[in-house]
Amino acid sequence: MAEKGILLVVSGFSGAGKGTLLQKLLEKYDSFVLSISATTRNPREGERDGREYFFRSKEEFEAMIEAGDLIEYACYVGNYYGTPRAYVEEQLAQGKDVILEIEIQGARKIKERYPDSVLLFLSPPSAEELKRRLISRGTESMEVVENRLSRAAQEAQGMEDYDYFVINDNLEDCVRQVHQIIESEHARCFRNGEQIRKIREEVEKFQK
Amino acid sequence: MAEKGILLVVSGFSGAGKGTLLQKLLEKYDSFVLSISATTRNPREGERDGREYFFRSKEEFEAMIEAGDLIEYACYVGNYYGTPRAYVEEQLAQGKDVILEIEIQGARKIKERYPDSVLLFLSPPSAEELKRRLISRGTESMEVVENRLSRAAQEAQGMEDYDYFVINDNLEDCVRQVHQIIESEHARCFRNGEQIRKIREEVEKFQK
Repeated sequence: MAEKGILLVVSGFSGAGKGTLLQKLLEKYDSFVLSISATTRNPREGERDGREYFFRSKEEFEAMIEAGDLIEYACYVGNYYGTPRAYVEEQLAQGKDVILEIEIQGARKIKERYPDSVLLFLSPPSAEELKRRLISRGTESMEVVENRLSRAAQEAQGMEDYDYFVINDNLEDCVRQVHQIIESEHARCFRNGEQIRKIREEVEKFQK
Repeated sequence: MAEKGILLVVSGFSGAGKGTLLQKLLEKYDSFVLSISATTRNPREGERDGREYFFRSKEEFEAMIEAGDLIEYACYVGNYYGTPRAYVEEQLAQGKDVILEIEIQGARKIKERYPDSVLLFLSPPSAEELKRRLISRGTESMEVVENRLSRAAQEAQGMEDYDYFVINDNLEDCVRQVHQIIESEHARCFRNGEQIRKIREEVEKFQK
C-alpha cells in the first residue's frame, strides 16, 4: 500500500529547539525525510551540494523560479532560499513524511498549494525560557541574542495560522509528540479516501 | 491549567469492536469519560439509573427536548435515546475527554453544535472480517447477522463526514491509536488560543 506521505512544515522561535528536534525525529523514525533547500549563498566549509543545500547560481535559481520548480522561496540578506518541488513530491509519493523547516511566510504558501500539509509551531515553555536558552548557548553576543528575541516577537504574529502548537519542554516528549501528531494525521478520513471507498464497496454487497 | 476536554464521537459498524475499544480506553486512561445517554426504554436486569442510562418517562424525555437539555436525540423502535447536555458540558469544562458512542445522524448534529468535536469512525480491516466476527460471536441467528451486515452498508454512507478513520485490527494498537489521536488533537492551535496569546504577549516585550 503506497500511502502518500505528509508534508510537515515546522516553524518556531529561534531558540525553540527546532534543529535538535528535527535531528532526533530523523534519527528515530525512518518514515521522515528532511527537504533540502536550494540557495544562492556560497557553501560554507564542510557543506556539500545536495546534502545541506542545493547550491545554485543566481541565474540557475531564477530559472527554477521561472519554471515553477520551487514550491516556495524567499530572499534573505541578498541570497535566495527555496524548496525544490521535485524532491518533495518524489518523497511524498514514496510515502515518506517530508519535513520543511521554514518561516511563517513560506508556511502560508505551502498551505495554499498543499492544503493537506501540516503546519506545526514549536515554542519554548515561556518567553523567559527562550531568553535563557539563547543566552546560555554562550556562542553569541548579547546584541545577537537581542536581535533574535526581537525577531521572535515578529514570528509570534503568525502562530494562529498553524495547525499544531507544540511546546518543547522535554526533548524526548516533544519528539514523541510530533511523531504522534503525524501518525494521527495519517488516520484522517481525507487521507484515506481509497481505503474508505474500498470497504464501503465491500459492505454494500451485504445490502439486502 | 483547566484545559477544556474534547468531545469524541465514536461510530462504526456493528462488529467493529466499539464496545471493547471504549471499555479499554476508559480502563487505561482516566482522562476519558463516557457520556451517559437518556432513554425511555425500560431498564434491563442489572441496569441502574445514571450508570448505563438515565431512565426517563416519555413525558420527561419530551420535556428535556423542549428545554434544549439534549445535544442530540433519536427514536429507535418506539423509544427515545439522547445525550444530556449538562453532563457532557460539565465533564468537558473539567478537562475530561468525553466519549459519545452514536451513529452518523447524531454525529453530524454534534459536529454542527460542537465544531471542535472529533468524529472517529471505527472499521474492521475488511468487510469479510466484519462478517467473520459477527458470525463467530455465535450468539445471534444468521438472520440477525444478515440484518447487521445490511445495516453496515447504510452506516458506510457517512464515513467521509468523520475526521478520523481507524481500523481495529489489533485491539491494543487501536486503543493506543485513539488515545494518540486525542492527545494530538489537544495540541491543535485552535484549542490553545489562551496559551498562544500568553506567549505572544511575553515575546512581544522583547521587541525593540
